[in-house]
Amino acid sequence: MHDYLTRRDYLKAAGLTLAACTVSLPATAAAAQAKPTMPNMIVIFTDDLGYGDLSSFGHPTIRTPNLDRMAAEGMKLTQFYTASAVCTPSRAGLMTGRLPIRNGMCSDKRRVLFPDSAGGLPKTEITIATALKKHGYATSCVGKWHLGHLPEFMPTNHGFDEYFGIPYSNDMKPSPLVKNLETIEEPVDQHTLTKRYTAQAERFITANKDKPFFLYFAHSFPHVPLFASKDFEGKSPRGLYGDVVEELDWSVGRILETLKKLNIDKNTVVFFTSDNGPWLTCNIRGGSAGLLRGGKGSTWEGGMRVPTVAWWPGTIKPATINTDITSTVDIFPTCLDLAGAAMPTDRIYDGFSLKETLVSGTKAERELLFYYRGTKIYAVRKGPWKLHFITQAGYRDKPHKQDPPMLFHLDHDPSEKYNIAAKHPDVVEEIIADVEKHKATVKPFPTQLEKRIPKNKKG
Amino acid sequence: MHDYLTRRDYLKAAGLTLAACTVSLPATAAAAQAKPTMPNMIVIFTDDLGYGDLSSFGHPTIRTPNLDRMAAEGMKLTQFYTASAVCTPSRAGLMTGRLPIRNGMCSDKRRVLFPDSAGGLPKTEITIATALKKHGYATSCVGKWHLGHLPEFMPTNHGFDEYFGIPYSNDMKPSPLVKNLETIEEPVDQHTLTKRYTAQAERFITANKDKPFFLYFAHSFPHVPLFASKDFEGKSPRGLYGDVVEELDWSVGRILETLKKLNIDKNTVVFFTSDNGPWLTCNIRGGSAGLLRGGKGSTWEGGMRVPTVAWWPGTIKPATINTDITSTVDIFPTCLDLAGAAMPTDRIYDGFSLKETLVSGTKAERELLFYYRGTKIYAVRKGPWKLHFITQAGYRDKPHKQDPPMLFHLDHDPSEKYNIAAKHPDVVEEIIADVEKHKATVKPFPTQLEKRIPKNKKG
Repeated sequence: MHDYLTRRDYLKAAGLTLAACTVSLPATAAAAQAKPTMPNMIVIFTDDLGYGDLSSFGHPTIRTPNLDRMAAEGMKLTQFYTASAVCTPSRAGLMTGRLPIRNGMCSDKRRVLFPDSAGGLPKTEITIATALKKHGYATSCVGKWHLGHLPEFMPTNHGFDEYFGIPYSNDMKPSPLVKNLETIEEPVDQHTLTKRYTAQAERFITANKDKPFFLYFAHSFPHVPLFASKDFEGKSPRGLYGDVVEELDWSVGRILETLKKLNIDKNTVVFFTSDNGPWLTCNIRGGSAGLLRGGKGSTWEGGMRVPTVAWWPGTIKPATINTDITSTVDIFPTCLDLAGAAMPTDRIYDGFSLKETLVSGTKAERELLFYYRGTKIYAVRKGPWKLHFITQAGYRDKPHKQDPPMLFHLDHDPSEKYNIAAKHPDVVEEIIADVEKHKATVKPFPTQLEKRIPKNKKG
Repeated sequence: MHDYLTRRDYLKAAGLTLAACTVSLPATAAAAQAKPTMPNMIVIFTDDLGYGDLSSFGHPTIRTPNLDRMAAEGMKLTQFYTASAVCTPSRAGLMTGRLPIRNGMCSDKRRVLFPDSAGGLPKTEITIATALKKHGYATSCVGKWHLGHLPEFMPTNHGFDEYFGIPYSNDMKPSPLVKNLETIEEPVDQHTLTKRYTAQAERFITANKDKPFFLYFAHSFPHVPLFASKDFEGKSPRGLYGDVVEELDWSVGRILETLKKLNIDKNTVVFFTSDNGPWLTCNIRGGSAGLLRGGKGSTWEGGMRVPTVAWWPGTIKPATINTDITSTVDIFPTCLDLAGAAMPTDRIYDGFSLKETLVSGTKAERELLFYYRGTKIYAVRKGPWKLHFITQAGYRDKPHKQDPPMLFHLDHDPSEKYNIAAKHPDVVEEIIADVEKHKATVKPFPTQLEKRIPKNKKG
């Protein structure tokens, strides 16, 4: 394992290995052997896609044959969570492997970053890209960033070799399309956005087919406003929302097909998931959380449990259904583990590696899962139990303090219908004590979401 | 095609065919060729299983690997309906291919048959079993009947060669287990019911492997009270409800495995579905309708749209997802069409054959779907539109007249959240006119559900 090698070191090391092997093994065999030590990794991250929006997760009229096939060839994760029910903190959790409370990427006043925000992901944070780049990976970010749009916070200053996308949500003005740090189109034509993102992703994969790479592919859709290309518009029975999701499904199919064509599919791990639940107040322009309660902005299951598929042909057992409690904060340690890189030891991480779960089907043992909203813990999951201290129906609804807290058994009651706190005072007590222990590990970092660009400066 | 041959005629005809072919073709090849003309048919019918209760329909913790594989090898039908949201009328619709309003198997006073009921499916009705038996099929009914428990109404007097099961719901006393017309156990031990039903079904299939057969396999579960065998009790994360559904899934696996072992799988069409939606008022002992609104007893989608899979290896294209509007009343014409039997012409049928949909993927073109509750039309579906005249949350809730009627676009809004009647007065008008045309075809038959056995007689 080559911990913390620079990319140049990696290439040098790989070259030496090949040279040293020429007598006993042909170069291709050596290359094939060397591959599994540093697999490529791709994270496809959709925006506001609900738990119930894929055919394989129960939607009756949205057609997602590529994602269904991805699940049939790989692993469907039915209890996979995000770090937050809204965009910016959710992405901070994914990128750093740490709850947003630990790095200031949350606030109780401004829930996400806006075009007038002056903050972003602190330089002291280590992203998956930073860690993997240091370890010899080529890194690319395609799509929505939303972790700060001032130059110092942009992907190319957070470990990515390159960036192509909209730096924040697609409903925020002036909707620039940015390449690295330069705006190349404003406002961006969103009709062709999924297609152009996909082309960028395919180009990066193809250019890096012979070296390890990490691609973070964060779609701007199905966040409103919805746009699909001419090939998809008006085609889905589910209307424009379905058109958009079906184009995302097409994009997934293109990525997997590209990996197969380049013969690097067996050496590439692909995760597909969403940043939070569906935006239920958008009428039919919003998605569905299926049997789960609530949606985006809510700490009910529908806000934070998202449709997730992992794919790694030849390694993940096909058609696996994993019901363990897993999270986007597990992606960082998983990627580092797969790459053979050591985890930084100077800070607290909230996830763990899923490598053995993917490779051998080992149970992912999570003791606790926290449902933060802003800086507050609204709910906690422990095994099948979920305790709610505060609930909130959706993004713009008012929070309701639950005193006494509400307790649900999620395995028996995934739709959170039956509060059984009164029957299980011991479980309630135990989880309350767990929360106190967790809080002792948290030193809230000053919020980065409330800083604003002075009005006379351009955002 | 041998329309309306008796079984003896069929065997005679088959014998002649084989004799005539001995010179040009070996007998086995002739038999193999003859097979597709009269495939075996199996209908597996569960009780109160909800749209969201299978893994392949989006349930996170109920494990249904056999049904998931059945869907992967066959066709998942995502818009398949029952003839009613409760047991007796739903089963009458399946068995006869006709809406219960046409044969008296509905009532606004007694929704289903009870142990003190004296009525049942009228002798004038033709069941799938009667039609197929006449056409040369061996016929068996295993499980719940619920179309009349007095001898004249029982399966063996409605076209079935044999019967083994509970004649009504498993929560009704005295819970007899009946073989043909004889009670063999009372009350029945329900823990082993799914296992014993399955053994009966396997026995029938094996005994009839060389001749065409029709098996109607109607499970008593997951209707409450719930019972699982020792192999399944306490095993599902979903609790007892999950145990019971996972045992049903095991049973499905056994049936498909038996067909494969006997090498008759390519000559057998299997349908799996449910009689109505989940019983939502049973707390965690009831199932889930997934993203659909309402459950058992309701004409919201959750009451009448059920998880359905069709399987016919070598004929149905694997992993097909069919989103056409289909129904249990289509099973009768489909079975007759597959058998090559002509439909009776002396009565009105409410379904049509799905043969071409199964064989070639041809779109099933249904003009209208009626949601009856008792003798009244509560709602109507036409294409993507659904118009509600009366709504009712669940089995024991009060009906609410909707005046003006509520209109939903089910393809865009499968959860029936957004009433858009005001925006589409033309659609509302059109459907109201369609209902009048339909009503003109209906001569309500006297209800069979209100007749009672005099109190001094044994039920």
